[in-house]
Amino acid sequence: MGEYAFDADTRVTASGPSGEFAAELTGRWDGTAGAVNGGYMLAVCVRALGLVLPFPDPIVISGFFLRPGTAGPATVRTSLVRSGRTTAFGEAALEAGGKDVVRATAAFAALAADGLVFTEGAPPDLPAPEDCAGVPVGSFGRATIAERIEFRSAALPGWFRGSPTGRPSSEFWMRFADGRDADLWSLPLLVDSTAPSVLELGAGSTTIQLTVHLRARPAPGWLACRALTRFVSGGYHEEDFEVWDSAGTLVAQSRQLAMVQPLRG
Amino acid sequence: MGEYAFDADTRVTASGPSGEFAAELTGRWDGTAGAVNGGYMLAVCVRALGLVLPFPDPIVISGFFLRPGTAGPATVRTSLVRSGRTTAFGEAALEAGGKDVVRATAAFAALAADGLVFTEGAPPDLPAPEDCAGVPVGSFGRATIAERIEFRSAALPGWFRGSPTGRPSSEFWMRFADGRDADLWSLPLLVDSTAPSVLELGAGSTTIQLTVHLRARPAPGWLACRALTRFVSGGYHEEDFEVWDSAGTLVAQSRQLAMVQPLRG
Repeated sequence: MGEYAFDADTRVTASGPSGEFAAELTGRWDGTAGAVNGGYMLAVCVRALGLVLPFPDPIVISGFFLRPGTAGPATVRTSLVRSGRTTAFGEAALEAGGKDVVRATAAFAALAADGLVFTEGAPPDLPAPEDCAGVPVGSFGRATIAERIEFRSAALPGWFRGSPTGRPSSEFWMRFADGRDADLWSLPLLVDSTAPSVLELGAGSTTIQLTVHLRARPAPGWLACRALTRFVSGGYHEEDFEVWDSAGTLVAQSRQLAMVQPLRG
Repeated sequence: MGEYAFDADTRVTASGPSGEFAAELTGRWDGTAGAVNGGYMLAVCVRALGLVLPFPDPIVISGFFLRPGTAGPATVRTSLVRSGRTTAFGEAALEAGGKDVVRATAAFAALAADGLVFTEGAPPDLPAPEDCAGVPVGSFGRATIAERIEFRSAALPGWFRGSPTGRPSSEFWMRFADGRDADLWSLPLLVDSTAPSVLELGAGSTTIQLTVHLRARPAPGWLACRALTRFVSGGYHEEDFEVWDSAGTLVAQSRQLAMVQPLRG
């Protein structure tokens, strides 16, 4: 059995000065605009930071996307900013094609197994995955990411049927197509893997910044997801994303700020 | 008439090498735990970045809080990471008391006056400010920030009355006590100025990371605010914050990840 695509494509190898890693961005996670997916690049940064920060779990990651990424050799320069009693902080700069592409900052800690629990809200109320249709939520234009990640939903998105619904929200199942289970390391990719909700408003989108909170280690199996844009104004929109695991636990919550783009025909 | 407290206390002066600024953190914005407020320190970083980045409006800021800040002389080291056609990115490191306290990254652009607008949700439905009671939402322990920012709400918070409600959410009016109107520069402070919602669960909180989206320049007058925690687990919680201006426009949306803390008596 070969290595899973996500693990192969986010591999980093120590190179050069301390904290510097070599990576290879592949064209296998391209998003709706045909560019290397931002969440994929963020996952590469987090994997490198995991080798530098002295705590086991990434708990929050912020990534700024300076320009579109390009497939090919890449370099991740990391630094340990502070290591405290409970939390460590690190920075990563991803360079691809000779250019600065992503700046990421992350905090690592150890997620507790006990303590106060409060939950408002619930996982999306979806038909079982086997009763859903495979939905090309991630496929638009030449999005190769749709070959790596499987989406299932009760109905095809309006934008995909050529009739945007005017409601920029969706609920669906998600998993890696090759059977790899999700973990904390892959969630930064997964929260950014779907087509933008604003397609339902007839608009496209370019991510400027993405913050991912990792709240629990996901149980194996399908992930139930909810994507939602509530505010479009001034040329920008936010997009919120929730990931719930097969045990009904919220495992990730993300929000991005993105620039509204005209759709290319 | 003197300078407004916010402007005086976030002043930065070029010092030393290019991109380095001197600041003076005051003890006038201390939060519920008696430490310098994180949003205040983030506002100092944003003000310094505004002198370095070639676009007028901060649109998204991410701050990581490495350790509690201390009042006194501080240094902000900024760098312009990239300046593109529509967006510029910069980093800031705030040092106070000889220690690294905050790492911030921001994107600046020009908020558009026109374009696609979509709004789901509405401002909090509050009685008029003159029909509300002054609420010490920000006052707990020795929080001096409650002297700088005025809060008004229909009812006193449960935690303040000694009976936490079990519902970590609130809606209230907010403005600077000295009459300064809010602008994009002060919103990073304002979104972090209230007591944490988890006080209604009988818990305290320490912010690890805060992301602020600035969506529109606020109209003068009272700000209608909504604070909400939906998930507490694994030792952490998120807190979402919305700020709506007097014209009914969403002007800021923020989310933080914070560590749950036992309350000190």
